[in-house]
Amino acid sequence: MSNGDIFVGEVIGTAILILFGAGVCAAVTLRHSKARASGWVVIAFGWGFGVLAGAYTAAPLSGGQLNPAVTIGIAVDTGKWGKVWIYLLGQFVGAMLGAVLTYLVYLAQFQANVPDPESGEEPTPTLGIFSTIPEIRNPVANLVTEIIATVALVLPILAFGLTKGLGESGVTVLIVSLLVVGIGLSLGGPTGYAINPTRDLGPRIVHTFLPIPHKGTSDWGYAWIPVVGPLVGGALAGLIYNAAF
Amino acid sequence: MSNGDIFVGEVIGTAILILFGAGVCAAVTLRHSKARASGWVVIAFGWGFGVLAGAYTAAPLSGGQLNPAVTIGIAVDTGKWGKVWIYLLGQFVGAMLGAVLTYLVYLAQFQANVPDPESGEEPTPTLGIFSTIPEIRNPVANLVTEIIATVALVLPILAFGLTKGLGESGVTVLIVSLLVVGIGLSLGGPTGYAINPTRDLGPRIVHTFLPIPHKGTSDWGYAWIPVVGPLVGGALAGLIYNAAF
Amino acid sequence: MSNGDIFVGEVIGTAILILFGAGVCAAVTLRHSKARASGWVVIAFGWGFGVLAGAYTAAPLSGGQLNPAVTIGIAVDTGKWGKVWIYLLGQFVGAMLGAVLTYLVYLAQFQANVPDPESGEEPTPTLGIFSTIPEIRNPVANLVTEIIATVALVLPILAFGLTKGLGESGVTVLIVSLLVVGIGLSLGGPTGYAINPTRDLGPRIVHTFLPIPHKGTSDWGYAWIPVVGPLVGGALAGLIYNAAF
Amino acid sequence: MSNGDIFVGEVIGTAILILFGAGVCAAVTLRHSKARASGWVVIAFGWGFGVLAGAYTAAPLSGGQLNPAVTIGIAVDTGKWGKVWIYLLGQFVGAMLGAVLTYLVYLAQFQANVPDPESGEEPTPTLGIFSTIPEIRNPVANLVTEIIATVALVLPILAFGLTKGLGESGVTVLIVSLLVVGIGLSLGGPTGYAINPTRDLGPRIVHTFLPIPHKGTSDWGYAWIPVVGPLVGGALAGLIYNAAF
Repeated sequence: MSNGDIFVGEVIGTAILILFGAGVCAAVTLRHSKARASGWVVIAFGWGFGVLAGAYTAAPLSGGQLNPAVTIGIAVDTGKWGKVWIYLLGQFVGAMLGAVLTYLVYLAQFQANVPDPESGEEPTPTLGIFSTIPEIRNPVANLVTEIIATVALVLPILAFGLTKGLGESGVTVLIVSLLVVGIGLSLGGPTGYAINPTRDLGPRIVHTFLPIPHKGTSDWGYAWIPVVGPLVGGALAGLIYNAAF
Repeated sequence: MSNGDIFVGEVIGTAILILFGAGVCAAVTLRHSKARASGWVVIAFGWGFGVLAGAYTAAPLSGGQLNPAVTIGIAVDTGKWGKVWIYLLGQFVGAMLGAVLTYLVYLAQFQANVPDPESGEEPTPTLGIFSTIPEIRNPVANLVTEIIATVALVLPILAFGLTKGLGESGVTVLIVSLLVVGIGLSLGGPTGYAINPTRDLGPRIVHTFLPIPHKGTSDWGYAWIPVVGPLVGGALAGLIYNAAF
Repeated sequence: MSNGDIFVGEVIGTAILILFGAGVCAAVTLRHSKARASGWVVIAFGWGFGVLAGAYTAAPLSGGQLNPAVTIGIAVDTGKWGKVWIYLLGQFVGAMLGAVLTYLVYLAQFQANVPDPESGEEPTPTLGIFSTIPEIRNPVANLVTEIIATVALVLPILAFGLTKGLGESGVTVLIVSLLVVGIGLSLGGPTGYAINPTRDLGPRIVHTFLPIPHKGTSDWGYAWIPVVGPLVGGALAGLIYNAAF
Repeated sequence: MSNGDIFVGEVIGTAILILFGAGVCAAVTLRHSKARASGWVVIAFGWGFGVLAGAYTAAPLSGGQLNPAVTIGIAVDTGKWGKVWIYLLGQFVGAMLGAVLTYLVYLAQFQANVPDPESGEEPTPTLGIFSTIPEIRNPVANLVTEIIATVALVLPILAFGLTKGLGESGVTVLIVSLLVVGIGLSLGGPTGYAINPTRDLGPRIVHTFLPIPHKGTSDWGYAWIPVVGPLVGGALAGLIYNAAF
């Protein structure tokens, strides 16, 4: 795969991933959305099918990694680091593009994020649509959560390729997407499961600059945890895989 | 594929798609339905599995496109426009047939759509069962939502065929149906995700003529947006695919 | 396939189908169940994955039809009626066996189906766990609902075999099970979607004889509709398939 | 497969299974979780996708059995008992490891399991996150529930391998995971569906020793039922399979 194909694939794929992922958070959170308050199951399947959409689309160009934790995990396992930078660059650009697209899809909803003229209800804080916020703020515990959840993502992905018949059947991405649904359902409770540094950092940058009324804080004090945690988790998964398989 | 097979396939497939899609909206909306008020997750999976049912059924006859945005996207990509008219004709007839079938399945429920004799509760407006209604009425924003959501449908569909092993394994339609679930969950909040011109226009025509008590407006002022938006989105997806892949 | 294998396969497979299907209705309905009041999405996926469990198990022995409407639809299409009786016999025995197994799984819950000692809350009517009950009692409308819903089940099943690569990939049953989830979500609102004569009749017989306290009526006046409707729908699907494909 | 590979595979796979399964129970139960009170559908899909994650990961090393009931069922069917001890040992160690990992993921939530400082609300009993608790305590009925539910798990698993094309397509584990979702939805109401002795016993041991505030009882009086029931069910499934297939 050429550097150009990898870059374009990761940009498009990660943009689609974030469009679906930030999109479902907007859908469930914003007051004037048909899916408002539709619950955690909607969040988890929305992110999972974002992986499905993004990774299948990117697959022919770049393999569809869409996540630095996955890219690092593969590099630790294979020892091939030469293309890592182009993957990460594409993922970062794509994540920011996806956040902007989500803003455009929910433009009228964001513009209406003002105190409710009838009930006086407060506008919704909007950072949770773009980036993760811990339920209990505890750096060590939050970091542990992100590390373990990322190992639970990357170790299975590394192992899938070994399963007889799976690599050639084209259903691997489907299974990865359901794995992501499962991580959301099971391990997303404490921190909102970044498990992907650019999924959190790119949209946080975009959130900082978007002209959303009453958007609330971009919470840069927490921003390092959903970057460091998944990077450590991805590398750890590569090491475990190398040792065990 | 002969024109006859294409027409019959698209009629049957689109009718099944709309039967499931309008059906799930009836199921969740109407007062005397066992699934009333069962939430957005039911809506999104109902439409997605309607794609599964309709597209697998139509596949042997017409390939199961069921959506002018998909047909246009393929035509823009391949430059082959000769069969487009027969696809669109079949989709349009099928969408109207599906809307009538939904009316028949929920006949007793529609007939009971009168003020509740006990509580005096108002009857349900019924257009939302057949066609889309924006949550906030804003033509530019609504159009942008439909265009981006349709690109998020058609671009992955165009790319799926390139994935190693996917084209031959028969699971492509399954993946497309889960993609549609994801679009519903993530991008359906603002406009109810038409992402298919005949899915909206055909049932709207049927709604205009059906003898449903207290059926409410057919809202023809909005009708052009869920037609133009998906057509633009489908063509745009074809252009992006041509440029990037 | 020998008659013995067909009979054993259909008994086991239909018993598993009903165990899951009646089971999920018990899970959502009964007061002392962990899944009580968990909603329509649980019902629809429970029945769908019952098809998955039952049909995959029966597949090596009998092909896993588990439904007279499917058996009749195939017979109308192929003109081969010689084995139909053994399929139907196995399905009927299996459906009754599955209903008894569900009773055993929820034995303590059924025994506790008495007025709540604390709140005085009334016990739950139990027929809805075993058989279908229309939301609005209207024989013509109920029959139309069951016929159309059964066509929407059997016509896709007949067509699936034609899809390139699907017949050999082993995922057909998975897709049929998701189709059944979709029918439940979209078309189950008016009558509770029997779409299978033995699924309704067998458990209704068992309900008539089980020693459940406060079990309520077995509603034999309605029992012919979920038998006749699916049989007509299955035959109709066979005719449409013959004409169109 | 070497004993070492089997042991490592079952440890890793079962740890992942329990991490997802206990994790989703923590997610839905604990007060400071984003998924709190998100319902039975989340529980059932969380456990099912835990099977998906764990079994695919373990598959290349040990085949991914992860459950003594499955291991016993296969041994009864094939008559090969030589490797059973190493499977069971790995599953037991893995289940305890998974429970500890879940504790770490939800560390801040467990530490905050104290009377709510604002409302005075009582802390949550935590055993249900780790092990099963019957809704109605009735040893015979609880045992029958676990036996039948385990047969409904193991008999289909034994039969799946016979389905044409399924064994080689790599989707078997996906189907098993949806089967487990179905068992949860349909048969989990009375006892919380252990259907796996180590899934219940390992985490119960861990729960006994973990320093969780207000953790409540580990309920050792019930502990034998989710061990004996699944073992009997697994053996029974092996016998039925031998007789019928």
